[in-house]
Amino acid sequence: MEINEIKKARERLLGTVHHTPLERSDTFSRLTGGDVYLKCENLQKTGSFKVRGAFNKISKLELKEGCKVFSCSAGNHAQGVAYSATRRGIESVIYMPLSTPIAKISATEGYGAKVVLHGDVFDDAQARAISDCKAQGGVFIPPFDDEDIIAGQGTVGLELFDDLPDADAVLVPAGGGGLLAGVALAVKSVMPHAKVYGVQAEGAAAIARSFKRETTELNKIFTIADGIAVKRPGDITMKYINKYVDDMLTVSDNEIASAIIALIERAKEIVEPAGAAGLAAAICGRYDFTGKKTICVLSGGNIDVSFIHKIIEKGLISRGRQIRLSVVLSDKPGSLEDVSRILARNGANVIAIQYDRVNAELSLNETILHITCEVSGAEHGARVFDAFKTAGYILL
Amino acid sequence: MEINEIKKARERLLGTVHHTPLERSDTFSRLTGGDVYLKCENLQKTGSFKVRGAFNKISKLELKEGCKVFSCSAGNHAQGVAYSATRRGIESVIYMPLSTPIAKISATEGYGAKVVLHGDVFDDAQARAISDCKAQGGVFIPPFDDEDIIAGQGTVGLELFDDLPDADAVLVPAGGGGLLAGVALAVKSVMPHAKVYGVQAEGAAAIARSFKRETTELNKIFTIADGIAVKRPGDITMKYINKYVDDMLTVSDNEIASAIIALIERAKEIVEPAGAAGLAAAICGRYDFTGKKTICVLSGGNIDVSFIHKIIEKGLISRGRQIRLSVVLSDKPGSLEDVSRILARNGANVIAIQYDRVNAELSLNETILHITCEVSGAEHGARVFDAFKTAGYILL
Repeated sequence: MEINEIKKARERLLGTVHHTPLERSDTFSRLTGGDVYLKCENLQKTGSFKVRGAFNKISKLELKEGCKVFSCSAGNHAQGVAYSATRRGIESVIYMPLSTPIAKISATEGYGAKVVLHGDVFDDAQARAISDCKAQGGVFIPPFDDEDIIAGQGTVGLELFDDLPDADAVLVPAGGGGLLAGVALAVKSVMPHAKVYGVQAEGAAAIARSFKRETTELNKIFTIADGIAVKRPGDITMKYINKYVDDMLTVSDNEIASAIIALIERAKEIVEPAGAAGLAAAICGRYDFTGKKTICVLSGGNIDVSFIHKIIEKGLISRGRQIRLSVVLSDKPGSLEDVSRILARNGANVIAIQYDRVNAELSLNETILHITCEVSGAEHGARVFDAFKTAGYILL
Repeated sequence: MEINEIKKARERLLGTVHHTPLERSDTFSRLTGGDVYLKCENLQKTGSFKVRGAFNKISKLELKEGCKVFSCSAGNHAQGVAYSATRRGIESVIYMPLSTPIAKISATEGYGAKVVLHGDVFDDAQARAISDCKAQGGVFIPPFDDEDIIAGQGTVGLELFDDLPDADAVLVPAGGGGLLAGVALAVKSVMPHAKVYGVQAEGAAAIARSFKRETTELNKIFTIADGIAVKRPGDITMKYINKYVDDMLTVSDNEIASAIIALIERAKEIVEPAGAAGLAAAICGRYDFTGKKTICVLSGGNIDVSFIHKIIEKGLISRGRQIRLSVVLSDKPGSLEDVSRILARNGANVIAIQYDRVNAELSLNETILHITCEVSGAEHGARVFDAFKTAGYILL
């Protein structure tokens, strides 16, 4: 495939997908010593870049009576295919494993697809999708390993050239490699001076392991970044990645979680774990931003609020914004009042409190009080601990 | 003041503040039956519109040796003044009450201000700010009741005209009324066909009570929307509001919280409580969007992650995404295993579990198990409850 295919894809997408904003982030620029730009595919239709590839493929189909597309995905690809088929006026059937959360099913149905739940794992659902598709004479829309899909995702690269032609580098999250292959091909064609890096989760680094070597499949993957949790990259995607990508980076789940919180706090952007992988490379220092204009592609924003809740909770604890004290008390009226007074005077906001009388170390008239409270940071937390020590309490 | 003052303000702001994006929201449009547009002042420099007024005022000052500006605010105005003064190359001193969270202090210092902590409440800090300002020959930058501040905030209205000249209505969050006065003046001058509505929190509805009547001061205010929690609106702001605003709406804290979650889930935008007030009017049905092009001004995005955490938690419970079961068990080995099996088979994810033996209703060999778990929604929650009933358990 040449750049011309991506340019044609762009014409097909016109009016259907957004040219998403490229925002300069003052905060991340200051933090990294470079110029950091965020490509907001989280603000794309259906909440991720996936609609670009799906719509490009679907808009190339010759429409016949009863034409139907089939796919298998419990994530962003499902929504991209559903939306694209509905826009083209054709039916779509999406297969998902039985365990798929209801929210993902309703989102896909909301874009007009029929959803079929089948099998315990992804592979079962996929096998059924392919066989039903064949039996019913439909067209199967693969998630990444396909020239039309790659060309569609590559339109992101053309938009980067429109908005920042003198970018020095682009960081692209990668799972199966569709986005990375497309963006790398586009960027190296229209602004060949720019470096292109793929970013993967440590626990699902199949492309990083296969890069410029034989394509390998991982036995086991484990990451919070479900959007890039892929065991085996595509053969077509690897061909382009090996040819056009400069290097592969990996980031840990904790680094991804920190990047999600930083994006919420600093850029007011909601990004899913896969989408935060590029910026995570900035936070963990695995890439040197200094003096360069670097674009982080925020590939998608489909994250459940209950997951944001968990990530923030973990973040608050690891930043010392929540502390836990275990205080030995005499088991008599008035003890709690004294403890409460110390907490109040030191500005600690109690979240949970629990009595614990079952402990071999305790005397009969002692009890342990486990206190969880909010403080403004590590220093404030230390002050609360000190206040208890000063008042003569034993902290466990 | 005439529209010309706002046009001049806009020239002063050029290159310093962003022309923020106006995004059409497909989801909110579908939900309301109208065309809903979001004006993203949460993506403004310093995270809110406040920088517009502050920079307009500060850029009009004649610079003399040792020129200094003073202000009092624990919120967005503080950051707007600090940023603007630093950009203009002059010193700023911001007064805040002693209880101000460290995060707000550091954000303001981060923009180059000197922060002085004084007094238990806002009024004490403000009195000190005004007297210090006088003593040191500085210039006091008021938060809203000032022609230059209002003209700066009014530039939002000019941008709305650039981006959607045929808008039918604009919803603007209002506390002291600076943004509302400025936007109303601008909108009625350049697109007089558009309606302008102010939106306030029910617990701090001073403008709504004063609208087209005598300006009244509230004795007590209570709302999560700290950015618009103002006891007494300005005299100058009320003059423009009475002249140009079509009507005032109020929304509850719960409606604001729902709007914040909806913006996270649907628009991938982080908005502070005051900033979500306009969209909350859509959710609570206090304004009819049907068939109209309506702009909701998202006035700011400065919300602490710990607060997002609390709002999501409340939202998950009220939507039935977290349920609490209290099950009577026989107090013997194996009971927990049976309960756990029912939970697992029904796909409920346990968050917390607590034994409770202290209950007058219980027999000696009984205990109550309080279980908190995550489910995918109300229907799933009902299925979990039913499973326990079917297995013969007593639920309290």
